[in-house]
Amino acid sequence: MSRTPRQIGEEVWKSRIEKVNAELVTLTYGSVVAQLCKDFGNDYALVNDQLDKMGYNIGIRLIEDFLARSGTDRCRSFKDTAEVVSKVGFKIFLNITPTVGNWSSDNKQFTLTLDENPLADFVELPDDGKASSELWYSNILCGVLRGALEMVQLQVETAFTSDVLRGNETTEIKVSLIRVIEDEIPVGDD
Amino acid sequence: MSRTPRQIGEEVWKSRIEKVNAELVTLTYGSVVAQLCKDFGNDYALVNDQLDKMGYNIGIRLIEDFLARSGTDRCRSFKDTAEVVSKVGFKIFLNITPTVGNWSSDNKQFTLTLDENPLADFVELPDDGKASSELWYSNILCGVLRGALEMVQLQVETAFTSDVLRGNETTEIKVSLIRVIEDEIPVGDD
Repeated sequence: MSRTPRQIGEEVWKSRIEKVNAELVTLTYGSVVAQLCKDFGNDYALVNDQLDKMGYNIGIRLIEDFLARSGTDRCRSFKDTAEVVSKVGFKIFLNITPTVGNWSSDNKQFTLTLDENPLADFVELPDDGKASSELWYSNILCGVLRGALEMVQLQVETAFTSDVLRGNETTEIKVSLIRVIEDEIPVGDD
Repeated sequence: MSRTPRQIGEEVWKSRIEKVNAELVTLTYGSVVAQLCKDFGNDYALVNDQLDKMGYNIGIRLIEDFLARSGTDRCRSFKDTAEVVSKVGFKIFLNITPTVGNWSSDNKQFTLTLDENPLADFVELPDDGKASSELWYSNILCGVLRGALEMVQLQVETAFTSDVLRGNETTEIKVSLIRVIEDEIPVGDD
């Protein structure tokens, strides 16, 4: 019997990771967003982009730690990947397990529904009439996913499609597979 | 038998806090510092100040969570405070227990020696010839301490005096009590 992604996630979370208080992350992340809103004069499109970039840089480094700790095998399908992202990745790093759903008919697109979001606990968006329609507060997560998946040869697009902070009923990230990156063959090595 | 600060810290850490992966904090914090270095054109004195301010804003909010979870009593002396900061505060939030030492003869000043520092795991300072003498990478911690202690009527100064990231042998924060803030009596209420 091989272990399910959920079993791997639970096991690694319990035994093999250094942990810190979630509240500290919430507040530190809040400082980051506030700083960027200030830097970019509340141009939320630029803030979203910057959060995504920061996340990407985190993702491409976090994946090493993830592979080392989780001991997960190479995923055989994008469906496998979605399960591992939710039940191992999110579990290990944020101790949450988003629901995977809304598969497209070609199995190249799914959504992650976050019932909880430690980054945004007790957060309120700026009350300036545009943050609630323009800012994706937790956009760093999109970048982390994109960066981490790229390191395992999956080029994806990631975007929030709803957020309870904006007054939506759910918090959802859409993940779309663009292509599987082939191992590059060095010139002259064929 | 009342519980020691260390017992309180262990107990609260084990049972009563939401936790996330320390690596995520290390990388997120790294993004914050990198962003500020960019914002302030590598003027590290300004970066240190900004980190301290961010920390202050976190500290004044974190203290509520801390008091609610830890159930610690009012400290009777600054010596008590130092023990609680190390064995309950740092334990709960970063899962480390810095060593309290170097008390001044008037018991108003001590140092916290951090044998581990989750904010700075595997971090290297920019190699520009001045970061290693000007940047206090983890300066947010000084702000957190200052903000949190101010909320319990202790006005303190906090400053890093050494950091292994700079090549020093230890990582130390000096904490100095400036004054105990008296409860303010509303005008006309005497």
